[in-house]
Amino acid sequence: MSQTPDSAVRTYIEQQRTAFLDDLVEWLRIPSVSAQPEHASDVRRSAEWLAGKLRETGFTTVEIWQTPGAPAVFAEWRSDDPDAPTVLVYGHHDVQPAAREDGWDSEPFEPVVREGRLYARGAADDKGQVFFHTLGVRAHLAATGRTAPAVHLKLLIEGEEESGSPHFRALVESRADRLAADAVIVSDTGMWSADTPTVCTGMRGLAECEIRLYGPDQDIHSGSFGGAVPNPATAAARLVAALHDEHARVAIPGFYDGVVELTDRERELFAELPFDEEQWLRTAKSYATHGEAGYTTLERIWARPTAEVNGIGGGYQGPGSKTIIPAGAVVKLSFRLVAGQDPDHVEKAVRAWAAEQVPAGIRSEITFGAATRPCLTPLDHPALQSVVRAMSRAFGTPVRFTREGGSGPAADLQEVLGAPVLFLGISIPSDGWHAPNEKVELDLLFKGVETSAYLWDDLAEHWRGAP
Amino acid sequence: MSQTPDSAVRTYIEQQRTAFLDDLVEWLRIPSVSAQPEHASDVRRSAEWLAGKLRETGFTTVEIWQTPGAPAVFAEWRSDDPDAPTVLVYGHHDVQPAAREDGWDSEPFEPVVREGRLYARGAADDKGQVFFHTLGVRAHLAATGRTAPAVHLKLLIEGEEESGSPHFRALVESRADRLAADAVIVSDTGMWSADTPTVCTGMRGLAECEIRLYGPDQDIHSGSFGGAVPNPATAAARLVAALHDEHARVAIPGFYDGVVELTDRERELFAELPFDEEQWLRTAKSYATHGEAGYTTLERIWARPTAEVNGIGGGYQGPGSKTIIPAGAVVKLSFRLVAGQDPDHVEKAVRAWAAEQVPAGIRSEITFGAATRPCLTPLDHPALQSVVRAMSRAFGTPVRFTREGGSGPAADLQEVLGAPVLFLGISIPSDGWHAPNEKVELDLLFKGVETSAYLWDDLAEHWRGAP
Repeated sequence: MSQTPDSAVRTYIEQQRTAFLDDLVEWLRIPSVSAQPEHASDVRRSAEWLAGKLRETGFTTVEIWQTPGAPAVFAEWRSDDPDAPTVLVYGHHDVQPAAREDGWDSEPFEPVVREGRLYARGAADDKGQVFFHTLGVRAHLAATGRTAPAVHLKLLIEGEEESGSPHFRALVESRADRLAADAVIVSDTGMWSADTPTVCTGMRGLAECEIRLYGPDQDIHSGSFGGAVPNPATAAARLVAALHDEHARVAIPGFYDGVVELTDRERELFAELPFDEEQWLRTAKSYATHGEAGYTTLERIWARPTAEVNGIGGGYQGPGSKTIIPAGAVVKLSFRLVAGQDPDHVEKAVRAWAAEQVPAGIRSEITFGAATRPCLTPLDHPALQSVVRAMSRAFGTPVRFTREGGSGPAADLQEVLGAPVLFLGISIPSDGWHAPNEKVELDLLFKGVETSAYLWDDLAEHWRGAP
Repeated sequence: MSQTPDSAVRTYIEQQRTAFLDDLVEWLRIPSVSAQPEHASDVRRSAEWLAGKLRETGFTTVEIWQTPGAPAVFAEWRSDDPDAPTVLVYGHHDVQPAAREDGWDSEPFEPVVREGRLYARGAADDKGQVFFHTLGVRAHLAATGRTAPAVHLKLLIEGEEESGSPHFRALVESRADRLAADAVIVSDTGMWSADTPTVCTGMRGLAECEIRLYGPDQDIHSGSFGGAVPNPATAAARLVAALHDEHARVAIPGFYDGVVELTDRERELFAELPFDEEQWLRTAKSYATHGEAGYTTLERIWARPTAEVNGIGGGYQGPGSKTIIPAGAVVKLSFRLVAGQDPDHVEKAVRAWAAEQVPAGIRSEITFGAATRPCLTPLDHPALQSVVRAMSRAFGTPVRFTREGGSGPAADLQEVLGAPVLFLGISIPSDGWHAPNEKVELDLLFKGVETSAYLWDDLAEHWRGAP
């Protein structure tokens, strides 16, 4: 049993509700758009605002960490119990670009509440989800009479997530000692729906490459030479076509090496989710499902590695026709990786496979970008169980499990810090991340506060740290 | 035996040499670039200049035929023998764009003779090769004492060949009665080399299409949806990859229907040509030969139908990466056709095949451009034999045979007029068609004059017209 009386938590949150929302609205007014240079000072202002608020909250150490780009905010509040586990909360204070004329019903940086929803850029992604932890930890203290959290609590709130976190990995590596933690809580994701609270147990990783194919030294005449020399656009197409076998399984030898297969229990749990494929297709703006034989759509996007062509180009693409054999072609591929796959091994496998696909007379160059590792926390991990219990108490219903098909900087934390990553997010698919009229449901936002309030006690009680 | 004493022809040509070259230089000074609107008046001036010169030459009917674009020149000079065959000479008076800064050693429209070569845009393609017929027919008359040619001679010199002959087909159809001929002589091609005079016996045809593939309504996130919906760039690649089988043979069912196979004699003749594959690859700016199994390079480019992808595009092609499943992709295909293939049948075959390649959830649109038919004159055709004999007499060596891998408006003449097409060209591969420093070898130019001088008698003697 947890030490925190739920009613005391709820009472405290109710008392602080207005002040909390007023603060959040103030933060949301700062257009901290990291991708737009003209907002660089706003991103700095956002970091300073958050740092001030974290000091007010009670964090004993609050620092702004500069990077070659936008600053991150680091905060720490140690438990009175020296043996308590250390938990690092990750989020970001920068936001996507937004302009009224993109289709917003109100100004994106003038937050407004309509029908129980707070509309503003960043309301869900990610200021709202970062901010619920500030009231969460206060409620935790108020309800238990503590003066410090039950765990050693750290926060790292970066300022470049919406710009691809270009300096995040280096920041984490250079501050690894300060960031050391037994677990990482990522509050930058969502859950299934308002009615179906879920905990995400993993994210896919990502490897990306560009393959350039060179044929003739210049475009040549398809009448004079057609049918007698290799065509690099054909080679590019054959390479992409060879990515998958007839079961839509990735056909690159060694690609699946080490893949952690879904357990029967996970498959059962996924299958129990109220998944509506028609609705999902509408969200995907697509007209059919298609993927690896033997797996459901949710399994395909959450738990199976993929190969996708993100771009292909070669020769003449303008109006009408041009009878050439093009000089070259380019293929951009990305691979989503799942737990057990090593990006370096995947890169080697792709390079070896690609070299075999290229016909004589065609020269190829393959370039890999920086990879993101997959992360996965087992269902029975005690820290994950704590998140599940805290969330169940807040929502008053059983919590189910999802995974995330995308990839994120959370994996860097897992890898550099050697700590499991847990996901605590209360956003729902309709919240409009990166879209006009982004919002957060106030009910869910306060469920997030409540989950955060229950979590630290539960963790301290059931888990003393890694593994 | 021919009626024209070769020495009389040569003597006449020698007498006229300077005046002929002066005239040709005057014509080459007119920058009749049909592709550049600012030269529209030059193209008209070129037509008028030629019309005047043809009247001087003795053509009894000379007309400028207007089109919605640039004008063509038509001329006719009937034989005294009403039963003589009618021959239509085809060429063009427009030229490719040219500018000194493209790499010319002298001004492209200020013709200059260096080391027995006349340098100017249009010297070989095609003014020089049109113009040799004017002195050719005069030499024919001078040497035989005739006052009219031995055949009913017609000329059609178009003004838009370098712009893709957009109005040529309509012009030929609307003037089919005036153009009616027993044979067409195309003087807009080349021969193997200065040492190896050749007659081209056919051109490949051309069918072109664009296939657009539509997947999601917009680019979608490859993390959220990757591996679970069909990717139109993958579909495009698989379609292109399916064009050929493992023997590099076109894999579209019905594509080869009707193809006139090479005869053993033709294969022997091709094989006797002094073909240097290394040299050919340098010309092709390519690094390997590749094509339909069981055929040589020359057979592949001259006598076999092909499928080539001229362009492919879809998704992100800029620097770096973008993790999307693209909304769509486009493929541009062209098919070179050989004798016996019907473009309409090929279009039907491609449409049926393409429809089968497209996976569920991807929508496709296929658009065909106007097709060009192939043309081929059998080696034993009496009119072709006349061209061979005339050329052999002019060059003093046996004449060999080639074909042309490209496609041209000559096929329209064959189809509309129902007449066989013969090729009489004296240009060689180093003449720099469409390139800087275009030139014609003066020795070969006058061999062209001489061939033209011998041809009309030979035709009238050995052939009375179709078939």
